[in-house]
Amino acid sequence: MQEGKNVGITYIKVNESDNVAITVNAIASGTEIMDGVKVNQDIPQGHKIALCNIAEGEAIIRYGVTLGYALTDIQKGDWINEHMLQLPIPPSLDDMSYAVNLMSDLPEPPVRTFMGFPNEDGFAGTRNILGIVTTVQCVTGILNNAVKKMKETLLPQYPNVDDIVAINHAYGCGVAISAPDAVIPIRMLRNMVKHPNFGGETMIISLGCEKLTLEMLMDEDYNTPENVLTLQEVNGHDAIISEMMKMAQHKLKKLNKRQRVELPLSQLCIGLQCGGSDAFSGVTANPAAGYSADLLVNAGATVMFSEVTEVRDGVHLIAERCVNEEVANKLAAEMKWYDQYLENSHVDRSANPTPGNKKGGLSNIVEKAMGSIAKSGSSPIVEVLSPGERPAEKGMIFAATPASDFVCGSCQLSSGMTLQVFMTGRGTPYGLAAAPVIKVGTRNDLKNMWHDLIDVNAGPIATGEATIQEIGTHLFNEIIDVASGRQTCAEKYEIYNDFTPFNPAPIT
Amino acid sequence: MQEGKNVGITYIKVNESDNVAITVNAIASGTEIMDGVKVNQDIPQGHKIALCNIAEGEAIIRYGVTLGYALTDIQKGDWINEHMLQLPIPPSLDDMSYAVNLMSDLPEPPVRTFMGFPNEDGFAGTRNILGIVTTVQCVTGILNNAVKKMKETLLPQYPNVDDIVAINHAYGCGVAISAPDAVIPIRMLRNMVKHPNFGGETMIISLGCEKLTLEMLMDEDYNTPENVLTLQEVNGHDAIISEMMKMAQHKLKKLNKRQRVELPLSQLCIGLQCGGSDAFSGVTANPAAGYSADLLVNAGATVMFSEVTEVRDGVHLIAERCVNEEVANKLAAEMKWYDQYLENSHVDRSANPTPGNKKGGLSNIVEKAMGSIAKSGSSPIVEVLSPGERPAEKGMIFAATPASDFVCGSCQLSSGMTLQVFMTGRGTPYGLAAAPVIKVGTRNDLKNMWHDLIDVNAGPIATGEATIQEIGTHLFNEIIDVASGRQTCAEKYEIYNDFTPFNPAPIT
Ligand SMILES: [Ca+2]
Ligand SMILES: [Ca+2]
Ligand SMILES: [Ca+2]
Ligand SMILES: [Ca+2]
Ligand SMILES: [Ca+2]
Repeated sequence: MQEGKNVGITYIKVNESDNVAITVNAIASGTEIMDGVKVNQDIPQGHKIALCNIAEGEAIIRYGVTLGYALTDIQKGDWINEHMLQLPIPPSLDDMSYAVNLMSDLPEPPVRTFMGFPNEDGFAGTRNILGIVTTVQCVTGILNNAVKKMKETLLPQYPNVDDIVAINHAYGCGVAISAPDAVIPIRMLRNMVKHPNFGGETMIISLGCEKLTLEMLMDEDYNTPENVLTLQEVNGHDAIISEMMKMAQHKLKKLNKRQRVELPLSQLCIGLQCGGSDAFSGVTANPAAGYSADLLVNAGATVMFSEVTEVRDGVHLIAERCVNEEVANKLAAEMKWYDQYLENSHVDRSANPTPGNKKGGLSNIVEKAMGSIAKSGSSPIVEVLSPGERPAEKGMIFAATPASDFVCGSCQLSSGMTLQVFMTGRGTPYGLAAAPVIKVGTRNDLKNMWHDLIDVNAGPIATGEATIQEIGTHLFNEIIDVASGRQTCAEKYEIYNDFTPFNPAPIT
Repeated sequence: MQEGKNVGITYIKVNESDNVAITVNAIASGTEIMDGVKVNQDIPQGHKIALCNIAEGEAIIRYGVTLGYALTDIQKGDWINEHMLQLPIPPSLDDMSYAVNLMSDLPEPPVRTFMGFPNEDGFAGTRNILGIVTTVQCVTGILNNAVKKMKETLLPQYPNVDDIVAINHAYGCGVAISAPDAVIPIRMLRNMVKHPNFGGETMIISLGCEKLTLEMLMDEDYNTPENVLTLQEVNGHDAIISEMMKMAQHKLKKLNKRQRVELPLSQLCIGLQCGGSDAFSGVTANPAAGYSADLLVNAGATVMFSEVTEVRDGVHLIAERCVNEEVANKLAAEMKWYDQYLENSHVDRSANPTPGNKKGGLSNIVEKAMGSIAKSGSSPIVEVLSPGERPAEKGMIFAATPASDFVCGSCQLSSGMTLQVFMTGRGTPYGLAAAPVIKVGTRNDLKNMWHDLIDVNAGPIATGEATIQEIGTHLFNEIIDVASGRQTCAEKYEIYNDFTPFNPAPIT
């Protein structure tokens, strides 16, 4: 990575072949940023500058990759905004090369254990939570009141239990439950019953007449009165609250016996995603996350990255890292499924990026994809998951999910993720109730603005004050500490977003 | 309606031409329910009995309408369950007759006014609420904490304000915002800003980089610092909470000046829907709601009924009541849109009814449709609304929405509904935070079971202890009282479901 001078650097050029650089700060028209390159307009922070003349139809190159083709002649020093590029054709999903870029030389992690709550299935909890999964939104109102009462009167009696979390959602009834795509939301809710942070003691609250039946939600042997309450079988409001409280107390007693113990990192499952990205995401926070991912994978952990629409335009780079044909084929199948899902509604990948992304300097989905993939580091990809599936392998995994922060977060939770690392450029107070979220900011400005909402600042990479390896190692240590019990900003303030199942099938 | 003896009646036959009746209670095999009809099996409550022999392929008739065709020979006295019928072809949407059944002889309402909060646009509030509309789920976590604090510290200072309600939702980003169908969720959120219960003082909370921009959410002149807070422009968590509290206090001061005054019922907008229906819905609660709807419409009120998939198989009966060709054409267009929406995902109308409906005796969507339409009474249909549209006319309106309780409730709220009447057979604790919900049970058993969750019991209609007109008039009076401020069961316990926008477009 070529940068201007260490302190007060003005631009970042990532790859030798790039014909654009991005601005570290806003640059006034007329400023000479390097020998022979004087900017022709006022350019906002994070936006692209042409480093040479680019003729109409020529490729615009960043990360060594074609972001698009110039729609008009562009002069050296010009500001290149999203209206000046035409999207390239997306990479073909047929006959992608696989297993041709399997990096074995990963960096050495400083530690290989953490303090977690062990489970029978081999994935440990990072928190000890009484989880309550609902079959349908009908039960939400009354359950929320019971949870409030549980947190006020019961939770303080069980000091080893961190929280009580209801997985409320809009699925379960008034949906096309037999549609082919209904397998996705149903799998997501099934897997939440078994979330590692819930310690095998999840409470199930059902109404009684919903389409998502208890049989669909859980294994037969879990469907016992100790685990399940059906509201239509209880005599009215007060009795329902009382039954919920009794059940919670019984569960809390059991959960309170769980203790943190030292465990190998192979029992940890981490999720990565970004939201509110900007032009710095791909040069600061995401590469730092990628470095910490390499450390985690080398230590035996499972690390998932996701967000189909964001990586679609760099899918060939993911395929090259897939360990075998089966994994590469599943990657292609998930991408095709999503292409079709969007096409069915006459939508294409240009729906991403967001206006905020563009304001932050991200011209299009190709530029966003390159930055997004950077978070996965360089290790081999051992498995591809359909939305909400549980992994069978350990290591780096592509978990196919929408890019929507809440839907991606919920899908990763269903896949057993117990800690998420969330990179943000524009800033979001995002948090999940069922697992801690470490928020990594891309710019010093964001950390200064939201000092109490951003956990890790990757901004010093852009200013030359820190390296990717330094911030990546710092983030790795933060992951170990948070997995072992330290609170994140979102946890401190109890900032939590709702569980949002991915339901590609119709509402009825 | 033909019934067995007044007390201890065993069956209900609705129409002279019906060849089935439904059981008021479970009936043991061998019981003679009428001259010459002895039941051949144990039949559960609310299920159908054949009143004569029905040969394979012959029509099974209830409400004078063909529910389906017998798949095997059925003997007089047999229990007819959902596996014994084949669905008829749905009514054609082309060339439906309209304006051929325009009832002008509606029953006289006992009163024509209520005590409400007047608004400039002519639709009054039934509650005085500080409404907070969000652009995106990103802001939910921090907003919920602020609302909790507002309700604890600010709300008690403003006795004329009933509540503070955040319209949190999963829309706003990570969605295909330019998809053709995105107009629906965007319209829903836009209209929530103007909800009659929010008195023109709605707070808007945005993140700053979401796809659903402030410009898309509201009229230009509403976008002022007094009404809108953008989190990315505020310095961190504590400052955000503090800004939200300041804004809320300013709004509460203004809202506290609102007073209930006597208003004509023409300023009231009522919504009707059902959920967890059973075989009694169509003979007790829904016809009673229909009678109260006739009283309301005669008094000048606006009354909406909804749930496209539930009425689809009786659409020709709705069309006959449409006042002109334009209204009938919009009815057909909304039905066609929904047929296509389901077909796009390889789903058809048989996705409804639910397992609970079937357990309650509803064999299929035709039987459910006849019962569902009964709630709209007999008055002319003056307008058809797309999901979440605001009405231009007063009187009986078909507001096209999904049948999903939460999505229907949210769509009706967006259409300006300020009180919902919710008929339930199986029972649900459903409630909405932005408008009161009166729950009407179909059976005495339900009222006995859920004595503190069901507001009105229509069960006595089935046992012959009350007429449809008596319960309908009682419900009308209840609507007036609740619209004028009396609490419902759901309000007493603060049982509220989340706002759920209808988003037929993809997640990205
Ligand atoms: Ca992202
Ligand atoms: Ca995301
Ligand atoms: Ca209240
Ligand atoms: Ca219904
Ligand atoms: Ca419904």
